[in-house]
Amino acid sequence: MEQQPRLRIGFVGTGHMGAAMATHLLNAGHQMCVYNRTSGKTEALHHLGAEEASSPAEAARDAHVVFTMLTDAPALEEITFGPDGILSTLPAHAVHVSCSTVGPGTNEDLARAHSERGAQLVAAPVFGKPDAAAAGKLWVCMSGPAEAKQRVRPLLETYSQGIHDFGEAVGAANVVKLCGNFMLGAAIEAMAEAFTLAEKSGLNRQQVYEMFTSTMFDTPIYKSYGRMVATEDYKPLGAGPQLLEKDLNLVLDQARTHGVPMPFANIILDHLSATVLRRRHDEDWTSFARRVSEGAGIER
Amino acid sequence: MEQQPRLRIGFVGTGHMGAAMATHLLNAGHQMCVYNRTSGKTEALHHLGAEEASSPAEAARDAHVVFTMLTDAPALEEITFGPDGILSTLPAHAVHVSCSTVGPGTNEDLARAHSERGAQLVAAPVFGKPDAAAAGKLWVCMSGPAEAKQRVRPLLETYSQGIHDFGEAVGAANVVKLCGNFMLGAAIEAMAEAFTLAEKSGLNRQQVYEMFTSTMFDTPIYKSYGRMVATEDYKPLGAGPQLLEKDLNLVLDQARTHGVPMPFANIILDHLSATVLRRRHDEDWTSFARRVSEGAGIER
Amino acid sequence: MEQQPRLRIGFVGTGHMGAAMATHLLNAGHQMCVYNRTSGKTEALHHLGAEEASSPAEAARDAHVVFTMLTDAPALEEITFGPDGILSTLPAHAVHVSCSTVGPGTNEDLARAHSERGAQLVAAPVFGKPDAAAAGKLWVCMSGPAEAKQRVRPLLETYSQGIHDFGEAVGAANVVKLCGNFMLGAAIEAMAEAFTLAEKSGLNRQQVYEMFTSTMFDTPIYKSYGRMVATEDYKPLGAGPQLLEKDLNLVLDQARTHGVPMPFANIILDHLSATVLRRRHDEDWTSFARRVSEGAGIER
Amino acid sequence: MEQQPRLRIGFVGTGHMGAAMATHLLNAGHQMCVYNRTSGKTEALHHLGAEEASSPAEAARDAHVVFTMLTDAPALEEITFGPDGILSTLPAHAVHVSCSTVGPGTNEDLARAHSERGAQLVAAPVFGKPDAAAAGKLWVCMSGPAEAKQRVRPLLETYSQGIHDFGEAVGAANVVKLCGNFMLGAAIEAMAEAFTLAEKSGLNRQQVYEMFTSTMFDTPIYKSYGRMVATEDYKPLGAGPQLLEKDLNLVLDQARTHGVPMPFANIILDHLSATVLRRRHDEDWTSFARRVSEGAGIER
Repeated sequence: MEQQPRLRIGFVGTGHMGAAMATHLLNAGHQMCVYNRTSGKTEALHHLGAEEASSPAEAARDAHVVFTMLTDAPALEEITFGPDGILSTLPAHAVHVSCSTVGPGTNEDLARAHSERGAQLVAAPVFGKPDAAAAGKLWVCMSGPAEAKQRVRPLLETYSQGIHDFGEAVGAANVVKLCGNFMLGAAIEAMAEAFTLAEKSGLNRQQVYEMFTSTMFDTPIYKSYGRMVATEDYKPLGAGPQLLEKDLNLVLDQARTHGVPMPFANIILDHLSATVLRRRHDEDWTSFARRVSEGAGIER
Repeated sequence: MEQQPRLRIGFVGTGHMGAAMATHLLNAGHQMCVYNRTSGKTEALHHLGAEEASSPAEAARDAHVVFTMLTDAPALEEITFGPDGILSTLPAHAVHVSCSTVGPGTNEDLARAHSERGAQLVAAPVFGKPDAAAAGKLWVCMSGPAEAKQRVRPLLETYSQGIHDFGEAVGAANVVKLCGNFMLGAAIEAMAEAFTLAEKSGLNRQQVYEMFTSTMFDTPIYKSYGRMVATEDYKPLGAGPQLLEKDLNLVLDQARTHGVPMPFANIILDHLSATVLRRRHDEDWTSFARRVSEGAGIER
Repeated sequence: MEQQPRLRIGFVGTGHMGAAMATHLLNAGHQMCVYNRTSGKTEALHHLGAEEASSPAEAARDAHVVFTMLTDAPALEEITFGPDGILSTLPAHAVHVSCSTVGPGTNEDLARAHSERGAQLVAAPVFGKPDAAAAGKLWVCMSGPAEAKQRVRPLLETYSQGIHDFGEAVGAANVVKLCGNFMLGAAIEAMAEAFTLAEKSGLNRQQVYEMFTSTMFDTPIYKSYGRMVATEDYKPLGAGPQLLEKDLNLVLDQARTHGVPMPFANIILDHLSATVLRRRHDEDWTSFARRVSEGAGIER
Repeated sequence: MEQQPRLRIGFVGTGHMGAAMATHLLNAGHQMCVYNRTSGKTEALHHLGAEEASSPAEAARDAHVVFTMLTDAPALEEITFGPDGILSTLPAHAVHVSCSTVGPGTNEDLARAHSERGAQLVAAPVFGKPDAAAAGKLWVCMSGPAEAKQRVRPLLETYSQGIHDFGEAVGAANVVKLCGNFMLGAAIEAMAEAFTLAEKSGLNRQQVYEMFTSTMFDTPIYKSYGRMVATEDYKPLGAGPQLLEKDLNLVLDQARTHGVPMPFANIILDHLSATVLRRRHDEDWTSFARRVSEGAGIER
């Protein structure tokens, strides 16, 4: 691979995922200015050479590229449009790489605002758990203006094992991300129903899990989520139920807008909402699977 | 592997799957007597050395082991208990290997009847499409008396890439088979909803399919069923919708018996039933995915 | 109304509903012989002049008409076909009035057995709670041979405010009964969802209940079930959740047989099953509504 | 009833429902200025003495009370906040009576804007079909500031048979309206499933309909919607499926916001969306019931 030019990168949102991604960008030799609402979370990156900004605006000032990796659309909008937001300082010709899981409309709004100032937005949500981020093995979905995508692709490659380009419509990659989170939820619910049926029929959940994940469903996804569903030990916490509740709401907003029946998505969201309302704070979102075993009268 | 003794095997039910399995047993050197309701389907096996029986009773006479691979429980019960059924001739100490997809209760009934005459039943349903059967790469789930399983295991190995033993309760393997077919249906419905959401959002179904089946859902199952869902070309016909409708009914019978809520299974069955009623005769059961795209107003 | 001839009536199954119906028949001047599995339940009828039988066979001996009002199909089949069952003594030309909530196939089987001996069966399930039975205000659905229906109609009139004749196919009235119980369940679930949405939006469940049941849903059904759903005080116990779970299973068996999608029925049954498994023993089946409020995080 | 003072009323939105309501207000002796986007619809009211305004602002100028009865929230917001909107002219101390079916948040936003100028908003959605409006027999749900409600109550009485006051929280009445439309949809779906089950079991839909609507479900609602479901003749068009699709979307928005599982609402919306996409333009929204009979393979 040819030598990449050293870029000035702003990075806003350095939680588990963001910090891992920023680390790869730093390791690739780029100059970085980081911002996080709670400042403790930027310290490790500072030790790797990143400058710490006191606001999103400061992180974006003079940047060639600014990354954002935030919890939800309101946070992303605040960090972009708010006072001291990145919109106020991001240079013309810079690119905003928007990695958060948000609806397509959110990135479309941001792209419009940026384009009025000569900057561009690339949507680049990722698939993978924090350990995949740490290993630089995320999967990236990307959409936005061709030239901007070309410029940021080498940066995305620092933390990914594959980049999928969904064209110029800036919200497209977000739709794919929402579809993916929905499909994960569907796999979890399917295992919850199957394992609970097996258990109530006198079988061992764990053995059924091992059978399926060593044959037809032999993938890391089924194995890692399935282990939680099989043992009903929903730890460690990768992402909480309220995060995925938000995502399933976005899925169904999109479905409503386009008149798509998504009965599976409805069920997953109902289970997630009930889980949020009674949540145990150290459990992963996968724990919505407990709605099935509880519904079958299983108490543990 | 040590030399196996040459056994006399009866084989009843030589459709696509049964014929492939019987071929492997013949190739392993066993003596075989085959029976199928429509006699044309035993001809190929005859050319490989199998004797053709004129009734199930004749196929089972003097057999060490009799295999049955039939469409549904009524067919299995007819072939076992009916006039000229295998129960009338199967020798004491013989083993009935019951491979059909039926509810656990059906095999329990058969096992009881056999045991009154000194014979035994092993439930041994399989996972895999006809091409996997032809390649000897099926996955087998097995349950029943330990000694009987030990005797038939070398036979099952002739056509399988793995055998999973679910203990002595004779219906256990059938529960696993039902769980598996349900999980396949859930994967199909999940893709149908996701790809349709993507399409109505302006994306290309095929590209979304390729993304997911090369990343998080990179398995033959998602690839083969997903290709049909992505292209909405539901060919070739592997198994018709009426077959899987029967299976999902068995799943839900089992769920009702044990009080397990299975909202996903309900949805899949509703889609399958609607598909059976309007079916196009050369399409695979996967075509129930069309209920989603049609519900979203897509006409092709 | 012309004077009715005095008939010899056998009455099997004298729970809350059966006892009230039998009382009306006695009050109309008929001769009666009653049987109940637990004998204490026939005492009050004995004081009104009924003879107490020691078996169903004895209750049916010499009867012009035998009524059965039992919990479920197995009980009805035992009382009919079992040793000392009514089939063994019911005279030729007598009529069996089958009032239990069973699937159409059960009554078809019974009718076949009776007709071999020259007797006939009329299916005559009822709608109404015990207090309606006491007041002689049940609604009766009836099906079976025309001549037999004509003979028993005056008897049914003693406890009903209306008789609906669904023709000669003996199971037809049972299908209507199943449809009705399903529709009651749907009304309950609809109120549970609506009232819970109102409550979580800051409104008073009770006030919303009063609004709807004094306007668009101003019927005794919505009022009596709705009061329970509004207050979440599911007493008194009219019918337990396990009884209606049985009925919804019959509904869905019938739906599966005929390929009818019934997504509402699926949901009601899932809620009922979960309720049976955790049931509080003095609560009405309406308490399945609690699945909605609990799913919304409401604890009382 | 004591003599009411003659008020100056603005009325915006004179479709079927609005025109009937305005007629009653005119007949009660009030002075009225009407506005509708398409001017032909105000002519009949002009003949009854109403002045015709060229904009919402003109209709609201000098009014004591302004009524709005519009299709959806965007229309209501445009007519209120838009250029020439009622906000620009409505006098301090006037009351905006907002009758449209919108989410509670919409009226809350409007109320806030009005209160900044000294005016007030009362939410007053109605239940009833156009013929009930013509007869002055609507049911009104009302919420908002006590003093404002007291002032407009005599006006609401001109077209209603009952007014239900849900307190001061301005969005409360809208929640009740949404709950009611959901409950209507649930009744329709329940009948669709029941009647289709009956039909496929060999019974006559019409007869089953007559049984239920003359016994347990003997209400105008079940009768009028049920007749359409029984005959599958979904005329006349009272409200189109796209209108109720909007309402069910509002129901589910509210459910999502508050974490309420509404599985019935999900099903109704899926059926409505599919119906909108293939709609026959002269059919009532009740035609979503056809999703059930079509799913059961019935073609008419």
